[in-house]
Amino acid sequence: MRVVAGQMLSFIDDPAIVGEERSYRFFDRGAVAIDDGGQIAWSGPLADLPDDWRRTAITDHGRSLILPGFIDAHLHFPQYRMIAAYGADLLDWLNRYTFVEEQRYGDPALAAQAAHAFLDELVRNGVTACLAFSTVHPEALDALFGEAERRNMAVISGKTMMDCNAPRGLSDTPESGYLRSKELIARWHGRGRLQYAISPRFAVTSSEAQLEATGALKREHPDLVLQTHLSENKAEIEAVARVFPWSCDYTDVYDRYGLLSERAFFAHGIHLSERELARLSETGAAIAHCPTSNNFLGSGLFGYRHAREATRPVSVAIGSDIGGGTSFSMLATLRDAYVVSQLAGARISAFDAFYLATLGNARLLHIDHEIGSLDPGRFADLVVLDPEATPVMAARHALSASLHDVLFALIIMGDDRAVAETYVAGRPMKSVLATADNA
Amino acid sequence: MRVVAGQMLSFIDDPAIVGEERSYRFFDRGAVAIDDGGQIAWSGPLADLPDDWRRTAITDHGRSLILPGFIDAHLHFPQYRMIAAYGADLLDWLNRYTFVEEQRYGDPALAAQAAHAFLDELVRNGVTACLAFSTVHPEALDALFGEAERRNMAVISGKTMMDCNAPRGLSDTPESGYLRSKELIARWHGRGRLQYAISPRFAVTSSEAQLEATGALKREHPDLVLQTHLSENKAEIEAVARVFPWSCDYTDVYDRYGLLSERAFFAHGIHLSERELARLSETGAAIAHCPTSNNFLGSGLFGYRHAREATRPVSVAIGSDIGGGTSFSMLATLRDAYVVSQLAGARISAFDAFYLATLGNARLLHIDHEIGSLDPGRFADLVVLDPEATPVMAARHALSASLHDVLFALIIMGDDRAVAETYVAGRPMKSVLATADNA
Repeated sequence: MRVVAGQMLSFIDDPAIVGEERSYRFFDRGAVAIDDGGQIAWSGPLADLPDDWRRTAITDHGRSLILPGFIDAHLHFPQYRMIAAYGADLLDWLNRYTFVEEQRYGDPALAAQAAHAFLDELVRNGVTACLAFSTVHPEALDALFGEAERRNMAVISGKTMMDCNAPRGLSDTPESGYLRSKELIARWHGRGRLQYAISPRFAVTSSEAQLEATGALKREHPDLVLQTHLSENKAEIEAVARVFPWSCDYTDVYDRYGLLSERAFFAHGIHLSERELARLSETGAAIAHCPTSNNFLGSGLFGYRHAREATRPVSVAIGSDIGGGTSFSMLATLRDAYVVSQLAGARISAFDAFYLATLGNARLLHIDHEIGSLDPGRFADLVVLDPEATPVMAARHALSASLHDVLFALIIMGDDRAVAETYVAGRPMKSVLATADNA
Repeated sequence: MRVVAGQMLSFIDDPAIVGEERSYRFFDRGAVAIDDGGQIAWSGPLADLPDDWRRTAITDHGRSLILPGFIDAHLHFPQYRMIAAYGADLLDWLNRYTFVEEQRYGDPALAAQAAHAFLDELVRNGVTACLAFSTVHPEALDALFGEAERRNMAVISGKTMMDCNAPRGLSDTPESGYLRSKELIARWHGRGRLQYAISPRFAVTSSEAQLEATGALKREHPDLVLQTHLSENKAEIEAVARVFPWSCDYTDVYDRYGLLSERAFFAHGIHLSERELARLSETGAAIAHCPTSNNFLGSGLFGYRHAREATRPVSVAIGSDIGGGTSFSMLATLRDAYVVSQLAGARISAFDAFYLATLGNARLLHIDHEIGSLDPGRFADLVVLDPEATPVMAARHALSASLHDVLFALIIMGDDRAVAETYVAGRPMKSVLATADNA
């Protein structure tokens, strides 16, 4: 049992739909009461803390903001250390760096060490849950899920499937991809807070037979999330058109094999046509917007407002896309989302941004009954943000006249230093990490 | 006397012109010998350190990189704490935040405190010299120059001139702008390492009479740098066209009053026509590219390669543009310069980036005989960069196979934490700051 106090912010609904005022709950002195199971028993103004909890020791974060832990809806576990690889564009970057690094993950010892470092980095940045790619190797996924289970973290991942246009060391076959996925689903899905995600890399690296098998997996496990990539880069789009000459566009390839659904996540989706956006809207599939990656690789400017247009609204999640992305920090990710929205001519607000990284991502992953808000019954996955983490942030904070100001400065100027603490299922994790670093 | 050792990198010439291989000197174990005047007496491989210096205590930075201190070619002293103000675009942002904040700088006590905080932040980020805007108030410039002189820093700045389309509290007149500038030039220019810069804010806030007086100042002081803003934002460009109906474009306004020259710096220059680029090229005037600011305000994507095209090459400097810019870090600035170059379809290299922020800016400011390289006779303004400053940077560093890899990861992932030390005229400044912070 634990009570955590501080400024408290939790979203109720999407500010882009219900308006900012009605989208969140904020308490200047708030508290979250956490039961022994690591779940939120109560949350609200500290002054209203029920009597039962008043004898519990309070961890007081003062003027720092307590939010639901960040959820990263798209990143690559085996790319955790290959950030900032100097590739010309997506396809060059994949071939020169990514495929080389990923081949190392067949080694269970290496994968275990990497899983440790990867999840440490999530914790350092206040990210308590994620939808992540692994590699083609079952060993890599075993390592990631094993370490996540040890930490009781909500990790959603799956073995990558790719059977063509990739090095032999990273390739499976339609049959082995299907069978290994089935085995891993049986071994891991639903164990603790873990979920399996069906994970074909992208259209270019899967044959028609593999996409067919992926469709079968999805039909057999309709409750599973599916993750892949879509329309990131123009050369990639041309490659897809060459490989699938019968398709009317990139989205059509996935559609043909039944991969579009309310539980499907398509990373990037930058250059989609109206037809594609309408089809994503119809099926409820989500785009995972990855602004630092799109900026780093020069992939293009994703139009957030455009994607969400009310006539055919497409769901949009947000992710770091490590290691195409340049930072594990969800604050840095939201900073670049703001930049992209400005350059695309329709800016988002800080409320839009924080909604996306918490309740928005949780809803699209269909885990908002477990995380994404500070409502009772949710796991106490929390991030505590200090708006005065550095001297220049402290100087800027003195000018803030509203909650929006505080949140906006956090995304524009903040990084992992602004994450004062990270709680996973009620347990403080970042301070423990910091202690270990100094030991 | 002091010897500083570490990896050592210093540019000789522009990699975009002479090629990467011939553009720099690098020593895996290098040393910089600094005399009692704070100037570089010798630099080269540590093994070749002259006998005279072998009895001097060596400050060894190990595997960290010693470079010439960063030079920021465009930022605003009075905006040091108003980073991340949520403005729709340039003109909205100026009116709602900037002009409000700048009005406070008539107060000498406030200005003195701000100068202290501002220069601390430069030091924290390894920036040892800058071309900065101040406010309209002589008091603000006195405070900035006074504090810079106390630290022996190479600050180039000037009283802002603006006599229209601005709040009364920030306005001067053609006469007072001219006279106060003359007084300040007499008081400060050439004192220690300080230089005065003629500083009309931008065309919109200066009357024709003021631009005329500015031209007179420039004729009377041809050795002075001139700084202003140009072609940042489309609404701004339209406003200039309305106010100066006789002009054929924005650049033409400054040209008419004789403000284009080899010592003129025009911040932004994003939306320039071929005619304007050719005219800048002809006169040798420089664009100060400010990528984090352009991204934050959604101003547009500056085409670095386009501006430098060999048929009519325009000089390009680089600046943070605090507080339109989002970081004092020159590494973060170079990261966004890379992003902008990628999105504009012609990427720069890490060598291009580091050249711009050191020797490139020094040359354009005509102070490359004093700073910008590690050659003997220069002031020992140094930045020491640690490529393993954070856990994720250390993990990434293990993959680096070349100097370019190391430099590139520094700009993509680095921030003030990667600045292990900052020397100003031979004196360590950042470590002193850190000690004071902890006291």
